[in-house]
Amino acid sequence: MYGRLLQQAFLQSRKYFSTEISSKSRCLPCEGIGKTLEREQVQQLLDKVQGWKVSPDNKQIFKNLELPDFMSAIRYFQQIADVAEAEGHHPDLHLTGYNKVRIDLSTHALKGLTENDFIMAMKIDSLGR
Amino acid sequence: MYGRLLQQAFLQSRKYFSTEISSKSRCLPCEGIGKTLEREQVQQLLDKVQGWKVSPDNKQIFKNLELPDFMSAIRYFQQIADVAEAEGHHPDLHLTGYNKVRIDLSTHALKGLTENDFIMAMKIDSLGR
Repeated sequence: MYGRLLQQAFLQSRKYFSTEISSKSRCLPCEGIGKTLEREQVQQLLDKVQGWKVSPDNKQIFKNLELPDFMSAIRYFQQIADVAEAEGHHPDLHLTGYNKVRIDLSTHALKGLTENDFIMAMKIDSLGR
Repeated sequence: MYGRLLQQAFLQSRKYFSTEISSKSRCLPCEGIGKTLEREQVQQLLDKVQGWKVSPDNKQIFKNLELPDFMSAIRYFQQIADVAEAEGHHPDLHLTGYNKVRIDLSTHALKGLTENDFIMAMKIDSLGR
């Protein structure tokens, strides 16, 4: 009980430092704790990730990319997967038209966006391709 | 000119043997030659591939799968990519909800379905996962 309260307090306190997250931050466990980000908070964090957009319902951020070819896209998926697995936070991945990639990030357990999604976006952006 | 006519004649002749395609068949070049399959031909070929469905506009076949986890899905993508690259025929790939895979096949150059899509479907189905 106290452990959970402490976790909640910790997550609340992080909100005031949300602009300090970076690609070196770690995703936090999100099942059943914490709150999703408000529209204004999402906009603040979007300023820190290049090329990412938010869905109209504020529940997902996404990025569209064109890679040189199909195999480059698959290798990029593999790199994203390694990060996603290490963080326990998995994006949706789409590969269409042989070289067009779309990455969707959302915190499904909370049905919305959390800092974790932006941490993952930064980690993905720090990958080579 | 004659080369192209010969290619067309060859493709036409294959139509009468469309039920003979298998996962051992090779995809044919499809840019600017050949015709897309009619609805009835698609239905015939669908009988030969398990779990594949056709889109209402008859322009795409697709299959939905659930894999054990995210990394299994990525490994499966890698396997599909190896076949796709060898055949020069690339499906659209989607991974959502950490383990749900959707594979879309269409012959983009002809804006519809050809035997190539069914050959690829059979090759994909013959992969382990």
